[in-house]
Amino acid sequence: MSAFPLTETRLASLRARMASTGTDLVALGPSSHMLWTTGVHPHGDERPVLLLISADRAGFLMPSLNADAARKATDLPFRCWRDDEGPDAALSALLEDCDARRPGLSVVLDETMRADFALLLLDAMDSPSRRFTGDTLAALRAVKDAGEAAAIKSAHRVNDQAVRKAFAALREGMTELEVQALIAAEYERQGAAPVFCSVCFGPNSAFPHHSSGTTRLARDMAVMIDTGCRVDGYPSDMTRSGFFGTPDEEYRRVFAVVESAVQAALKAAKPGVPAAEVDRAARQTIADAGYGDNFLHRTGHGLGLDIHEPPYIAASSDAVLQAGNVFSIEPGIYLSGRFGVRLEEIVILREDGPEIFSDMPRDMVVL
Amino acid sequence: MSAFPLTETRLASLRARMASTGTDLVALGPSSHMLWTTGVHPHGDERPVLLLISADRAGFLMPSLNADAARKATDLPFRCWRDDEGPDAALSALLEDCDARRPGLSVVLDETMRADFALLLLDAMDSPSRRFTGDTLAALRAVKDAGEAAAIKSAHRVNDQAVRKAFAALREGMTELEVQALIAAEYERQGAAPVFCSVCFGPNSAFPHHSSGTTRLARDMAVMIDTGCRVDGYPSDMTRSGFFGTPDEEYRRVFAVVESAVQAALKAAKPGVPAAEVDRAARQTIADAGYGDNFLHRTGHGLGLDIHEPPYIAASSDAVLQAGNVFSIEPGIYLSGRFGVRLEEIVILREDGPEIFSDMPRDMVVL
Repeated sequence: MSAFPLTETRLASLRARMASTGTDLVALGPSSHMLWTTGVHPHGDERPVLLLISADRAGFLMPSLNADAARKATDLPFRCWRDDEGPDAALSALLEDCDARRPGLSVVLDETMRADFALLLLDAMDSPSRRFTGDTLAALRAVKDAGEAAAIKSAHRVNDQAVRKAFAALREGMTELEVQALIAAEYERQGAAPVFCSVCFGPNSAFPHHSSGTTRLARDMAVMIDTGCRVDGYPSDMTRSGFFGTPDEEYRRVFAVVESAVQAALKAAKPGVPAAEVDRAARQTIADAGYGDNFLHRTGHGLGLDIHEPPYIAASSDAVLQAGNVFSIEPGIYLSGRFGVRLEEIVILREDGPEIFSDMPRDMVVL
Repeated sequence: MSAFPLTETRLASLRARMASTGTDLVALGPSSHMLWTTGVHPHGDERPVLLLISADRAGFLMPSLNADAARKATDLPFRCWRDDEGPDAALSALLEDCDARRPGLSVVLDETMRADFALLLLDAMDSPSRRFTGDTLAALRAVKDAGEAAAIKSAHRVNDQAVRKAFAALREGMTELEVQALIAAEYERQGAAPVFCSVCFGPNSAFPHHSSGTTRLARDMAVMIDTGCRVDGYPSDMTRSGFFGTPDEEYRRVFAVVESAVQAALKAAKPGVPAAEVDRAARQTIADAGYGDNFLHRTGHGLGLDIHEPPYIAASSDAVLQAGNVFSIEPGIYLSGRFGVRLEEIVILREDGPEIFSDMPRDMVVL
């Protein structure tokens, strides 16, 4: 019985995937892949940490320094190494443990691990073939269980309150950073951890990844807030847009097009539908209204332990949606130097379609 | 003329190193290597970002979404890719730009980049040989210029004040997290960003990487505070130890041994001396006092844009110290279940020896 109660069932699911995909070994770094599988989230620095999983063995390569902390989370075996000896001998022993020194094994690598960890492992093996986690671990993680969905819901409940308070607090002369601080304070009051926050005033809203700064709110400025917090390990993510003053006709038109694109994507999202079709539904709506060149990014991304994870809702995605997938629908139109409008929902896909986590309407907030 | 004023001199230094080490191409991810070289610190997510530097060319692979923000920092050319097309064609074009499609080139890889970025690049090249940045970029970054040293000094000035205030505020019943919050508040008051903070009460101090928690301070507990903040992009890092109540004889003895180990390491550190000898000086002092098995980690690490970077002060290090190196000297003795003592200074190595950044004495803080 492992210290992290989900390890056994998750390892069993992963091994079933490994068998069906011809995978001999899964190698994870100190990442959310490792956390999801074992509950272990080690101190991350330049000291190599790996978790190797074979058909019937699993074990960690772990700096001695962090072994005590990691042992609280897992009963899986460790091969430890000390600063004065380096990781090579311990890695060698771990590969023996997992019967992973045979030539030509098929290895799945955690795509997020550091390049030096990955090459340390690949160089210690005998010409393995390698790919990333897309059809094994990432595919499993893309279907959320009830506990994960409940945590994501809790994070959105906190987020809704923070975003409502932020819009209600807007006053002429406030900076984006001041609004960001209000959101952070509400997260803290509710025991949630901030994950990211982008508050955009006026032309800053036309840059999809704007970093909040010292721009001050003035009359007749667009406002966009994209923010998320973490509760019970899982994040929220939401964008709402509005206007401080009286929106002109183009802002209203653009807003209505983006809302239609959200609705088109929501309608297209069903189990069995390719993610690329959901992207196409949103994109076509925006293109038909004449703003195709102003929708600068994919329609959405999966969300779980990571803010961005599969399935990606993009033209280049080969994912087919499944019940239990959690992802964003977040079309946007960006008019450089003027304003941007993005509306973002995180949904969980049910058998009959998407269910939205946020309870805050997407209506234009006019202040 | 580049937007980031140091790009030209730093690229020139790097190219001189590339020539002397037989390096054809340096490939960096969105990391402090990229920031140091070009001032560009792009939004980091799963979208591949690379900077390739050859003997006479340099250019970025950049998601279109982030191109506008990155262009504010650099005049180097970009090959951009959109979500709907993926990075392959843009990477191909960038490799052509840098004349990097010839077989067998010698590539230096940023060891911190994601495994999928690294393998995307290596797979797109024709059987390159590869190594990490140790003898090129990391070696350059290990010698700090006056601007870097000034920023590190500023960060330590703030840190000293925060740590003094934290020790002065200790009261029975406080939690480690409350002390951490006091430190964070002092950082914020001074416009510094928190980087990490470990407050350890009692037996928690015997774990070198303890995460501050809800342990409450009681009489006759050891206290250890290891914390750092960032000012002008550069961090501080400092550990002080003390006792809440009356330290017993063993605590006093251990404290004195650790202080002697710090002094031995400071005395050993000179330009031209192997880093391993500085480690040996501290380690021998502790071993001679009978606590050799309780010094669980290397003596120190370099510090710059990264909290941990070369040179590492460790038995396994092959670095030879140079004037301008900035690194920690932080021996510790950890008695499991009882207490730990660590004392940490960050120093810059001058021609005549190390200069300490902190102005706070290492004396035992007794409260």
